[in-house]
Amino acid sequence: MKKIINFKTKFNQFSDYWSPKVIAKMNNYQFKLVKTKGDFINHKHDKTDEVFIVLDGKLNIEFSDKTVEINSGEMIVVPKGEIHRPYSENECKIMLVEPRNVINTGDVKDKLTASNNQWI
Amino acid sequence: MKKIINFKTKFNQFSDYWSPKVIAKMNNYQFKLVKTKGDFINHKHDKTDEVFIVLDGKLNIEFSDKTVEINSGEMIVVPKGEIHRPYSENECKIMLVEPRNVINTGDVKDKLTASNNQWI
Repeated sequence: MKKIINFKTKFNQFSDYWSPKVIAKMNNYQFKLVKTKGDFINHKHDKTDEVFIVLDGKLNIEFSDKTVEINSGEMIVVPKGEIHRPYSENECKIMLVEPRNVINTGDVKDKLTASNNQWI
Repeated sequence: MKKIINFKTKFNQFSDYWSPKVIAKMNNYQFKLVKTKGDFINHKHDKTDEVFIVLDGKLNIEFSDKTVEINSGEMIVVPKGEIHRPYSENECKIMLVEPRNVINTGDVKDKLTASNNQWI
């Protein structure tokens, strides 16, 4: 702790898409960087809200009632239990904030399900 | 919820320093924007870690054992119970992540103690 965490330096340490890397822990919450490109799957997290902060690029999230576009310098809170499908046409760099042990594909087991707790 | 929150738009809505404005809630945590300039006071938060993300400018935090400099695109986790004193020579724009009800001056009552739970 008390280390300076530089997002750019951390993003340079991985290249895989849709695979969250943990960069910090605050109480029982984690901050995770993700590179996104293409389509993710519909899923939900039944026990927690989830924050998406876009650091570079453009991310879309499709909900059952609307699709939103989130650009660099913007964030959104995805409510607990709400089905959502993130996608980005081009590479996008985001930060997630959520309790530790949250799985990226939530209630769905898929080939996109990433190993949890991957620290960089 | 499910609203896009734009940091720049939110920062344009206030001008006072060291007075956190809540922009989002995730479970029992809050995301707060703060403009900093000049010196803050020594304080600690006995019950929680605290995350500082610098969105624009340069922030310093003085601890008992070292002083760190955090620039735009960087973050730090201040551990629970650790005395810290933020300061910035010039205006700096930051985001805090911490449980709701955390007071900006922690264990200290001061003229810099801001009203809590100020949503914008």
